[in-house]
Amino acid sequence: MHFEYSDKVKKLQKELQEFMHEVVYPNESVFEEQLANSESRWQIPPVLEEMKAQAKAAGLWNLFLPESEYGAGLTNLEYAPLCEIMGRSLIAPEVFNCNAPDTGNMEVLVRYGSPEQKKKWLEPLLEGKIRSCFSMTEPQVASSDATNMQARIERDGDEYVINGRKWWSTGAGDPRCKVAIVMGLSNPDAPRHERHSMILVPLDTPGVKIVRILPVFGYDHAPHGHAEIEFNNVRVPAENMIWAEGKGFAIAQGRLGPGRIHHCMRSIGAAERALELMCRRVVDRVAFGKPLAEQGVIREWIADSRMEIEQARLLTLKAAYMMDTVGNKAAQKEIAMIKVVAPTISLKVLDRAIQAFGAAGVSEDFPLAAHWANQRTLRLADGPDEVHRQAIAKQELKPYL
Amino acid sequence: MHFEYSDKVKKLQKELQEFMHEVVYPNESVFEEQLANSESRWQIPPVLEEMKAQAKAAGLWNLFLPESEYGAGLTNLEYAPLCEIMGRSLIAPEVFNCNAPDTGNMEVLVRYGSPEQKKKWLEPLLEGKIRSCFSMTEPQVASSDATNMQARIERDGDEYVINGRKWWSTGAGDPRCKVAIVMGLSNPDAPRHERHSMILVPLDTPGVKIVRILPVFGYDHAPHGHAEIEFNNVRVPAENMIWAEGKGFAIAQGRLGPGRIHHCMRSIGAAERALELMCRRVVDRVAFGKPLAEQGVIREWIADSRMEIEQARLLTLKAAYMMDTVGNKAAQKEIAMIKVVAPTISLKVLDRAIQAFGAAGVSEDFPLAAHWANQRTLRLADGPDEVHRQAIAKQELKPYL
Amino acid sequence: MHFEYSDKVKKLQKELQEFMHEVVYPNESVFEEQLANSESRWQIPPVLEEMKAQAKAAGLWNLFLPESEYGAGLTNLEYAPLCEIMGRSLIAPEVFNCNAPDTGNMEVLVRYGSPEQKKKWLEPLLEGKIRSCFSMTEPQVASSDATNMQARIERDGDEYVINGRKWWSTGAGDPRCKVAIVMGLSNPDAPRHERHSMILVPLDTPGVKIVRILPVFGYDHAPHGHAEIEFNNVRVPAENMIWAEGKGFAIAQGRLGPGRIHHCMRSIGAAERALELMCRRVVDRVAFGKPLAEQGVIREWIADSRMEIEQARLLTLKAAYMMDTVGNKAAQKEIAMIKVVAPTISLKVLDRAIQAFGAAGVSEDFPLAAHWANQRTLRLADGPDEVHRQAIAKQELKPYL
Amino acid sequence: MHFEYSDKVKKLQKELQEFMHEVVYPNESVFEEQLANSESRWQIPPVLEEMKAQAKAAGLWNLFLPESEYGAGLTNLEYAPLCEIMGRSLIAPEVFNCNAPDTGNMEVLVRYGSPEQKKKWLEPLLEGKIRSCFSMTEPQVASSDATNMQARIERDGDEYVINGRKWWSTGAGDPRCKVAIVMGLSNPDAPRHERHSMILVPLDTPGVKIVRILPVFGYDHAPHGHAEIEFNNVRVPAENMIWAEGKGFAIAQGRLGPGRIHHCMRSIGAAERALELMCRRVVDRVAFGKPLAEQGVIREWIADSRMEIEQARLLTLKAAYMMDTVGNKAAQKEIAMIKVVAPTISLKVLDRAIQAFGAAGVSEDFPLAAHWANQRTLRLADGPDEVHRQAIAKQELKPYL
Repeated sequence: MHFEYSDKVKKLQKELQEFMHEVVYPNESVFEEQLANSESRWQIPPVLEEMKAQAKAAGLWNLFLPESEYGAGLTNLEYAPLCEIMGRSLIAPEVFNCNAPDTGNMEVLVRYGSPEQKKKWLEPLLEGKIRSCFSMTEPQVASSDATNMQARIERDGDEYVINGRKWWSTGAGDPRCKVAIVMGLSNPDAPRHERHSMILVPLDTPGVKIVRILPVFGYDHAPHGHAEIEFNNVRVPAENMIWAEGKGFAIAQGRLGPGRIHHCMRSIGAAERALELMCRRVVDRVAFGKPLAEQGVIREWIADSRMEIEQARLLTLKAAYMMDTVGNKAAQKEIAMIKVVAPTISLKVLDRAIQAFGAAGVSEDFPLAAHWANQRTLRLADGPDEVHRQAIAKQELKPYL
Repeated sequence: MHFEYSDKVKKLQKELQEFMHEVVYPNESVFEEQLANSESRWQIPPVLEEMKAQAKAAGLWNLFLPESEYGAGLTNLEYAPLCEIMGRSLIAPEVFNCNAPDTGNMEVLVRYGSPEQKKKWLEPLLEGKIRSCFSMTEPQVASSDATNMQARIERDGDEYVINGRKWWSTGAGDPRCKVAIVMGLSNPDAPRHERHSMILVPLDTPGVKIVRILPVFGYDHAPHGHAEIEFNNVRVPAENMIWAEGKGFAIAQGRLGPGRIHHCMRSIGAAERALELMCRRVVDRVAFGKPLAEQGVIREWIADSRMEIEQARLLTLKAAYMMDTVGNKAAQKEIAMIKVVAPTISLKVLDRAIQAFGAAGVSEDFPLAAHWANQRTLRLADGPDEVHRQAIAKQELKPYL
Repeated sequence: MHFEYSDKVKKLQKELQEFMHEVVYPNESVFEEQLANSESRWQIPPVLEEMKAQAKAAGLWNLFLPESEYGAGLTNLEYAPLCEIMGRSLIAPEVFNCNAPDTGNMEVLVRYGSPEQKKKWLEPLLEGKIRSCFSMTEPQVASSDATNMQARIERDGDEYVINGRKWWSTGAGDPRCKVAIVMGLSNPDAPRHERHSMILVPLDTPGVKIVRILPVFGYDHAPHGHAEIEFNNVRVPAENMIWAEGKGFAIAQGRLGPGRIHHCMRSIGAAERALELMCRRVVDRVAFGKPLAEQGVIREWIADSRMEIEQARLLTLKAAYMMDTVGNKAAQKEIAMIKVVAPTISLKVLDRAIQAFGAAGVSEDFPLAAHWANQRTLRLADGPDEVHRQAIAKQELKPYL
Repeated sequence: MHFEYSDKVKKLQKELQEFMHEVVYPNESVFEEQLANSESRWQIPPVLEEMKAQAKAAGLWNLFLPESEYGAGLTNLEYAPLCEIMGRSLIAPEVFNCNAPDTGNMEVLVRYGSPEQKKKWLEPLLEGKIRSCFSMTEPQVASSDATNMQARIERDGDEYVINGRKWWSTGAGDPRCKVAIVMGLSNPDAPRHERHSMILVPLDTPGVKIVRILPVFGYDHAPHGHAEIEFNNVRVPAENMIWAEGKGFAIAQGRLGPGRIHHCMRSIGAAERALELMCRRVVDRVAFGKPLAEQGVIREWIADSRMEIEQARLLTLKAAYMMDTVGNKAAQKEIAMIKVVAPTISLKVLDRAIQAFGAAGVSEDFPLAAHWANQRTLRLADGPDEVHRQAIAKQELKPYL
């Protein structure tokens, strides 16, 4: 056991941090201004593509994708501290082509895609030329139990016909978003976890209708957005099926493990940034004759934040290590644990920082409120905390049953 | 001691509840649609004025204002359960002309305004014809310590000249908002709590510039908004001074007590609505073969929410009772306590409800996220929790010093 | 609605407080010393009977027992603030003949006892001449579900035969403890809540064996103790049955309501005393150059404690009010709420006080650790928190089902 | 970075676990019985020395003491998981000669003792022939600020004269306890952290008086105990001074780092055992028609416990790793963090287990309440949480000042 990052990781950390300081942080406000001043909030602020080009040129590109010729050849454990750095800024992950849900979708295509699917969708995704979305959750049912999913995927000759309503399809508001991976019920008579499939649906297919963009708290998350999408007799060629009929849950297992841990790494980055901002703020602001930093209560917030972050980071790193060494399935309990822990502590740290900032904290002047809203969704996305807790308990109780 | 509302209160509760069910709740979405479809988000959706007219006609108007000929003659204790009902909907308080900051401003004018000031500003406010804002907080200093306030109010002949920058002037985005009560430093050499004054500044005075509207967790809170305002050599007649020079903190004491308790009553209403929505949702939604309502963890949320709400309500009622019987000053500790307790528990209940709703909870489909963001500001507005806690402790320790 | 105690209550509060200061507090250490120096820890320290005589003489005796000719004629609401004062000292309740489980047992006898039972057991209990215990919980089953109870009460001619093992029979170690109310299974084929009975069992009946005294966090709670009792073919006359066969749960309902609220009132008294002790301590002790009372974190503890106590007290008073006005059954939700809230907050306040006292806090030099241990049992006694929470949720959900 | 224990550690873990199962656990109740049945609670139950002999024979002896010829040659990181296993039983640490305060005292002697001091005290301690205590804390001052310490150590010719009152000298009740390391004020005019010294005081020196044994909650912790000791003109030879006059804080720094981390490792062991006991219990006990293990709330406790333990363990291991690699001083922040985290989470897990056990949980039938009381002292011993939190915050803020 040891707790040192490898030299390879340290070098990448340094490069990434420098890139963040030189390129990303200064452009956060530029991004917001370009967005605010563009005709539509659903256009891509030019600075984003500029940053992407710079990141690609710097070799800071596609750092996710362990065990694959397509990625940067990093293990989950190596990627974790890098992903954390990206998580410090809401606009950073895409700059490095490491943003959800594209990373998860790319992982699906790498693992389960046909050569044609890879050529058509994976390659442009890896190059950052197009974006994709993932359509799983549905408005009419409790998605905490994924087997509730009702959208239909039915074979009809050489095609599949898709009908249903999905929401929280993140990224579907982006004009560059070309394809959705849609999960739906294809084999209703099969065993419970073999009834659903995943299929590729180009967003320009007739019958695909983006009904609305859902706000998160008051944020529209433009230009990506979270879409409610109606699939109305949408027909795609049979070869768009991923892997095979009934493999939806099998793919989801493979997809969600890494996807979850990426979210957690970023959560820790967000928490780390909030702590830094809070520290900077409290040494500057004076109330009742002394800097806030000298208030015992504020110092307690800082200490608690540091303790929570350190612990959550170590647990995330251990989960990554286990994914690398014993595989995503054996690491299930650890993944479930960080899925609960990381957003929970990140919300706590962000909330303390907001409180320390006063009203500025809930505004757009600092990225705290926006990060908070984002983190809040992670206690629901990819399974609510409660479902993960029950899964952890189930495993924990197993030896005693 | 007894715990029954008076018949008068019960009657008003019934009327208000019916009005909420018949008029307000159904119009929440109408309000949002009109706002979304109007040319500017800073226009008043017509439904708002329609509802106001209905409320006025029904006698549900200006229910705040204890001990005053201008109001409905209700004590704080009588008003509390009514204000709570209004707090269930974000658009309701204005419907009954009981919304912040107008109520606080009206109280200031009733208590400290000159006959001319009353005529000019109080009367149209009471009639709901104009709106007002309150400019106290400043971006450059820690407002938790109000003596930090730096905006200047300087006498120059028959006028006062105002210079400074204020933010979080709620309501200043509203086209009907005609006047600000501005607090600033007028007598820098006086004792610490006699240096500041409050003065009436019509918003159309030259030199008043609304710099921007500040978002709250992504919400613009249109058409009212929270404004950052620049006061640049703004000149107003000397008779706009409220009470007298140096009375700023004295007025603030009088203004903030009732203002704080109104917020708390509404916080409890928001929590109560969240609990109701949560209960309705969990009996309907099925996961893993049974309604969410049968999950022990969800039931624990419901029980905890009920316990927190009941306690916070009783404490708020007791604070109101004390304001009525021993006065706002003697009730200071109780006011500080509810100021901490009410938004804290309301945030907890709302957060649980959001979690129970899944992704729908963070969206606009239910008023949970919007209420949450609103409540979150109340842990900062009118003094952050930490300042109130220190005040409570100070009083608590007094007998032992 | 109003929040003032009646003059009658205020007068009794004053008398009780004076009695506490003059008699009880100074004798807490005397009691401990007499106990430590007596041959056996299961003898009654003489000071206890002396204090009882003084309390009786002062008319501060049997203040519980609402709606009964036997008691002091106080309502639950009137008794609550008095019981709270008694709860400040672990030895006080018995001084006033208001200690558990005797109060609950006396209530049972008042309500459901036959004239003979009253004469034989109620009268000496009311006079403080004997003590009693209550044998309900069993070691072999989860007592959170009372229907699990397995001890048998079987009719045999003119007698009942009792067999089984009970534990946590509080007070059974006391040499003055003469009788147990035993609850057991008498009618196994009846409907679920009509299978159990309560019966009076003199402790000197052959077959009654006190197996051991159970410690609570190391405390033996001498000279009362919590006993594990074996009932081995114990025969009592048929007239010892209380009310009638199968009425066990009906009686328990009636018994536990008041019993629970008394515990809660005392919990609040314990919390209040801890807060007072903490305040006294922190103004005296100096660390890092200033009194602990000037540390922000300590002040936060004090403020939080005050807020929690105030709320819990109000909720307890409201529950008492409802018991008086709508009855114990209709007040069930409120009773369940305070049963969860009161010990929970009292443990929090005590824990903070312990922390503020440093190592002295866990010792016997202050009553904090002993109160803590006592309060900790109340999250289990008369139903664990979790069962009460589920009951609250059940009631809360009812309107929506 | 990797998260696997070395083969050496795994082997020792296995041996220790087997020893615990075969020797220690079965003897926990034997130890208690022998203690209960001996004439005095301050005699050593024979089973303890028997177990020590077995552990020594098995080579499971003195596993602490990194970087020293005297110990087993384990690093802190290697010792951590072993110490954790010992922490599962309150009687285990001494069985392996790894109990506080002897380990800390031995570390002091190894690092700072003269050859004569080593010969006289270290050797019999390493052999487990004698025990020692550590006299630092004082009843009259707030020990959270160690510079408050008032006991005097004054040079008088070839001797030092010690005067003062110490308490919480753990182990001083043990008949085998022969020596105390006493810390006191020797150089009142030196700089703040050079005023105090540590000196060896044989307990049979005239003037040393054990005033009383302090209980922890209701536990006397016999046969070791926590003593209040009066030092009344106690004279020891000058060569009993450790290192040199004024080095008290320097030694304390060196002593407390490892001492603190050992406590934390044991805390995690205690938590782990509580979780295991809870799991075993809830699969067995049935309430409301199903095992407690099927209650969602209970499962949440189990999941939360697992998450807290895993994180605290990782943080402790990292702190141990840093002590090994960068030294105790550079690892100060990490040591402070685990000092806060480990007992905090261990108390939470124990409290949940107690609640799951019902009344059995607060009794002596399971080691939960005893472990809880023990862990509770660790939020105070070696510095209260609050002091450690302030230290963490201080370090955290440093880069921004």
